[in-house]
Formats: sequence, structure tokens, C-alpha cells
Amino acid sequence: MTNFSDRKEFAIATAKDAGALALRYFADRDALVVDQKGAQDWVSEADRNVETFIRKKIAEAFPDDGIFGEEHEPTKGSSGFDWVIDPIDGTTNFVNGIPAWTIVLAGVSDGQTQLGVIVEPNVDETYVAERGAGATLNGKPMRVASGVALDSGTVSVGYSNRVEAAHVIPVIAALVERGALYHRNASGALSLAYVAAGRLLGYVEEHMNAWDCLAGQLMIAEAGGVIEDQDVSEMIKDGDRVIAGTPDVFDALKAICEGPWD
Amino acid sequence: MTNFSDRKEFAIATAKDAGALALRYFADRDALVVDQKGAQDWVSEADRNVETFIRKKIAEAFPDDGIFGEEHEPTKGSSGFDWVIDPIDGTTNFVNGIPAWTIVLAGVSDGQTQLGVIVEPNVDETYVAERGAGATLNGKPMRVASGVALDSGTVSVGYSNRVEAAHVIPVIAALVERGALYHRNASGALSLAYVAAGRLLGYVEEHMNAWDCLAGQLMIAEAGGVIEDQDVSEMIKDGDRVIAGTPDVFDALKAICEGPWD
Repeated sequence: MTNFSDRKEFAIATAKDAGALALRYFADRDALVVDQKGAQDWVSEADRNVETFIRKKIAEAFPDDGIFGEEHEPTKGSSGFDWVIDPIDGTTNFVNGIPAWTIVLAGVSDGQTQLGVIVEPNVDETYVAERGAGATLNGKPMRVASGVALDSGTVSVGYSNRVEAAHVIPVIAALVERGALYHRNASGALSLAYVAAGRLLGYVEEHMNAWDCLAGQLMIAEAGGVIEDQDVSEMIKDGDRVIAGTPDVFDALKAICEGPWD
Repeated sequence: MTNFSDRKEFAIATAKDAGALALRYFADRDALVVDQKGAQDWVSEADRNVETFIRKKIAEAFPDDGIFGEEHEPTKGSSGFDWVIDPIDGTTNFVNGIPAWTIVLAGVSDGQTQLGVIVEPNVDETYVAERGAGATLNGKPMRVASGVALDSGTVSVGYSNRVEAAHVIPVIAALVERGALYHRNASGALSLAYVAAGRLLGYVEEHMNAWDCLAGQLMIAEAGGVIEDQDVSEMIKDGDRVIAGTPDVFDALKAICEGPWD
């Protein structure tokens, strides 16, 4: 088994530094240049410059690694290890001033996500997972919730302009009919991290991009939760649906998501 | 015009102290005793003890004022000034470890909300409004968003076990059909404060209690937004629906909320 401990420590330090940089932009957000990529899809100079910062750090430390990021063109690598990064997940929150957004780094090799780091700098939380080695929040082991049924918990329902608006409605309807509460805090990676930390029961979204979900999916699996087996290369290329949850609710979430989309 | 500046400064200081107390319970939440009041309705010793703390402070500073709180019996006053308090708004977040919950104090006299203070201690934000004197976030004036249409913004859709589950679905459906994003962070008072701060376009919920909404509604009105005229005594007695938003979207939100509930 390959050991990724050097890359893990690097990823934690880099995500924290990137979070500190993003916080400085956030504190001065009235000066931010914000562009629109599409309907309800925003990007700011903070997203672009934080990604550039992370790319530079990777290029210095692991010059042969590949990089896939949300805001810039991919960098092809030769080491067999690829980074999949979202400089700011929750850009809508960021540009509107809501202090709930994250820096996301995932590390991929051998067709699998090996590392995941999600940093929420507004409340100084660092979520880390390494395949086969568990998941931590600020250095302490994380576990998904246990023994909590859908009618006593909350499920995050992600939504973006990449899917038909109407598709999300039967999912929320099925959840509330079963007594669950719905949640959407506009940072998918943060919500996935909350599932891993036992704060939410699950996460469902019809389509996510790899930089939003790979790190959080690994965290949930390493914290004792259930995720779907997916081809990481396909995820990086096209994205896919995301269903993740505690062992108590995963099957119910999958049934809910598959019902109306067929 | 009565001047409430002494009570305003008292409310800010007390809400901050209560926030610091709640943060200590939150940091040690594994030790919290949590009880269930009803389906998806929780209360912890933190809620009860923080309310007791606030009540004691009010009794010392303004012994003739009345107090209505979420967790204890009302205290009848003789001064004509009543406090309406939620010691922890977002208890579900609190007991599950999500750092998004608030301390809420509203001050009522002459049949109107005169003061509102919402403190979010996780990110050290203090939202304050005084009738006729504007609204502030950490001491700086707040304004609702301006010139942002529904299809470029986000609306918080509150939901609780006090209403029929199915009622919320057509509201979310109408919002996404019009291109809006929905949001639910499980603290109604925090979401109302976000509307006042220009971070969300609006807030809708079929039923809120007075301690969850009076402070935030005043903030939105004082920050240039639109709220419905409501009888505060009736709100304290039974609660009511809440529709609040920017001048650009309020009428659309009201139409959306009235459609399916008739």
C-alpha cells in the first residue's frame, strides 16, 4: 500500500494557507470583482487567485502531479497522482457575505480518491480523510451518526443550475413526507463534511462536480458512512449524482433519489 | 418618542454574554442532556440555562419588564416593555454540532417591536435594530440587497414540525421554477438577519414563533426591506406566517406563499 502521508500533511497545510488567503478576500469583499459564469453561477477573483495559489504550492512540492481545478485548465501530470481542487466551494455564499464556504483538496491515484481535505476557515475547522486510515475533524476521529432514523434527522439536498429545476422537488417532498428535515447551506463540500462529522444524516444531489464531492465522499466512507462506488475518472470528466449517508438511511436516500429521476 | 437606548445597549451586552455561555456548552456538547419536545423538536439544558441567564439579567436591570421566552413560563411585567427571547435559535444545529445558531432578544412596547438583537457567536456577528434608527451588523449599517431579481438570488425557506409537511413543497417548487435558489440553514433568526444584511433575498415560513422572528423582522424593515404588518400580541400568543424580503422580490414571495396555502 502506497503511503500518502507526505501529501496529506502538505494538503492540510496548503488548504489552511489557502483558507487564510480566502478569508482576507472575504473580509474585503466589497472590493471583489465578481463575474457570472451562468445562471446562478458566480466566480470571483478570490476563487481564481486562491486556485492559482494552491496550484503554485503543488507545483513546488510535487511538480509531477496532475491538477484538476474548478477555475483553471487542467495540468497533466506524470506521477500518477492527481489533485482535484475547489479553491472556494460555496462561492455564492462567499460573494454574498455568508460565512459558510470551504477550501477543498482531493488526491487521486490508482483510480481512487486517496486523500480529502476540507477547510472551513470562518470557524477554523479542518476535515481530513485518508483511504483506509479514517477521518478526522481538527485532529479528532470523526464518525457518522448512528441509530438516528430519517424522521429524527436532517438531510442536505444540493441543487444547482446544472440540473432541471423540477427534479429536486420530489426528492424534498419524499424527505419531508418521511419526517426528515431538509437542509441546504450552499456549500456541498461543507455539507458532506457535516455528514462525516455526524451533524447531518445524509447528502443527495443530482449532479456534482468532482472538485465538490470527492473529498467529502471519502470522508463519509472513512467515517463509517455509505457512498456509491463511482469511477473517479468519469467523475473528473463529467461529474455525477451524489448520494451519501449513514448506514441507517443510505438505502432510503437512494430509493428516494431514484424514484422520480427514472 | 420613547428612547430605548439604555435597553438597546443592555440587550447587546446580554446577548453577547449569553452567546459566550452557549459557546461553552457547545464546545462540550457530548456532555449535554438533550430532550425531545416533539417530532424533530429538541431542547437541551443549554437552551434552558441560557434562557435562565438572560431572564436573571433582565430581572436585575429592568425588574418591571415582562419576559416571553421559548423555554420557560412568561413573566408578566408592569413597565409596558416586554422582552421576547430565544436563548438558542437553531437548537437542532446546536445539538448536532453545526456552528450556525443564534441568541435572539426582541423588545416590544406600544404593540410594536422596538428593538432586535441577534448574536451569532460562532463567527462573532452581532446584528442590531432599533425602530426608526436603522440596523447594524457589528456596528456598521446594514442594507438589504438591491437590484437583485429572484433568478439571481437565494431565498431561505423555513420549515418545522408545526405545519403540514406537504405545504412547503409548492413554495420551493415555485421558487426554483422562477430560477431562485432555496436555502435552509436551520436557524430562522440567523436567516432573517442574513436578509437584513443583504446576503439572502428573502425569507418565507408558514409558521414561526415570536421569539424566532420579531427581532429579524424589525432588522429587515430597518435595513430597507419589506415585512408584513402583524399584531405583535397575536404573534406572541400564537405565532404566524413570516414573509420578508427585499423590495424587489417581496410581492413575488407573497404571491408564491399565498398560492398553495389557500
